Amino acid sequence: MSGDARPAVVLLSGGMDSATVLYWARAEGFAPTALSFRYGQRHSAELQAARRLAQEVNCELVEMDLDLAKFGASALTDPEIAVPEGPDDGIPATYVPARNTVFLSIALALAEARDIHDICIGVNAIDYSGYPDCRGEFISAFEKMANLATRDGVEGRPFRIHTPLIDWTKAEIIRAGVRLGVDYAMTVSCYRADSDGRACGTCEACRLRREGFETAEVEDSTRYQE
Amino acid sequence: MSGDARPAVVLLSGGMDSATVLYWARAEGFAPTALSFRYGQRHSAELQAARRLAQEVNCELVEMDLDLAKFGASALTDPEIAVPEGPDDGIPATYVPARNTVFLSIALALAEARDIHDICIGVNAIDYSGYPDCRGEFISAFEKMANLATRDGVEGRPFRIHTPLIDWTKAEIIRAGVRLGVDYAMTVSCYRADSDGRACGTCEACRLRREGFETAEVEDSTRYQE
Repeated sequence: MSGDARPAVVLLSGGMDSATVLYWARAEGFAPTALSFRYGQRHSAELQAARRLAQEVNCELVEMDLDLAKFGASALTDPEIAVPEGPDDGIPATYVPARNTVFLSIALALAEARDIHDICIGVNAIDYSGYPDCRGEFISAFEKMANLATRDGVEGRPFRIHTPLIDWTKAEIIRAGVRLGVDYAMTVSCYRADSDGRACGTCEACRLRREGFETAEVEDSTRYQE
Repeated sequence: MSGDARPAVVLLSGGMDSATVLYWARAEGFAPTALSFRYGQRHSAELQAARRLAQEVNCELVEMDLDLAKFGASALTDPEIAVPEGPDDGIPATYVPARNTVFLSIALALAEARDIHDICIGVNAIDYSGYPDCRGEFISAFEKMANLATRDGVEGRPFRIHTPLIDWTKAEIIRAGVRLGVDYAMTVSCYRADSDGRACGTCEACRLRREGFETAEVEDSTRYQE
């Protein structure tokens, strides 16, 4: 990484989308600072994946603790709510209330504190179209709000939210990632991954991931349980 | 509190403004759930004050830990940065990057998880005009973003952010609070309060508070150090 690369905060969950964004940011000439959350998600193997990915691209990983599980109301954080096997009608049970708003807000706080003005997030409006906080409309509204909320925003040093994957299919993400050098065996998408990060193969996230590899005609490097 | 009061999340720092909002919400017929943060602020006596205030109005207090001090860049969270004695030019050193954005986002997550659609925050654009995230423009942009970000927002159960104090002077806040029954001796505004919540009397927050009592012609009940 050259010394004058433009810094960027990259939200890194350890899943395939955010891993692809991390490599995309590097290829675009950004010097990334990755940001991950321990928010009470069931699939904490993701965090291990985030650490390995950050190490791989040689960037700092800032880990934040935030107990959103205390609020419940999502299959991802509340053990009482089952993770759905198939596609839901409308917004899935895995929706975590206001999650991307919370994550982007904290990314904004980190960015402003460190004089960084670019924030990258792997939202995608195609395959996961049920999540309201993965759409371009939401991102535009967040960016506008961010530039009214902050010292840098009001003083003419605006923040920009980058969403390179927003219009890509899962297959397009995988093809781009492979070109960029992402090792998807390191990433965890499964909502029910075991502690070693191996996937269940049957949840909605596994299904989309598997279909993505098939459509992209890329060998599925996912490590499955069994 | 009647059983059919409309629920609301009230951001409660333990300072005089948020205490006034808590009592305002109750008087408006809301059943408040208070939300406080342990975010690495120097003046943690505020949290004790928040607990006492929540007890006083008999509402639940949800306490969240979020280590914004890790990011630094504010006199409120970074011991290396001095708390200013007098008014700053422009945005004060006590500005915490994106703080209200982060707090409102987490309030939104709590609200949506509990099927609450009203959020109350004690921002004030008059006396603390240096903070960009205390202005009506910011609040409007946040509300708009929130209703694009969330399941309830996009499904026609919108969130509303209430800012009853936004155009009030400190004196007006104090007069309203006294009418509503707030005991300001329980609140902590000082940036350098001791562990018992007693105020330094000389920081910018103390100065504004003292002037507020003088202008309101209300006896200053603040407990000062020495």
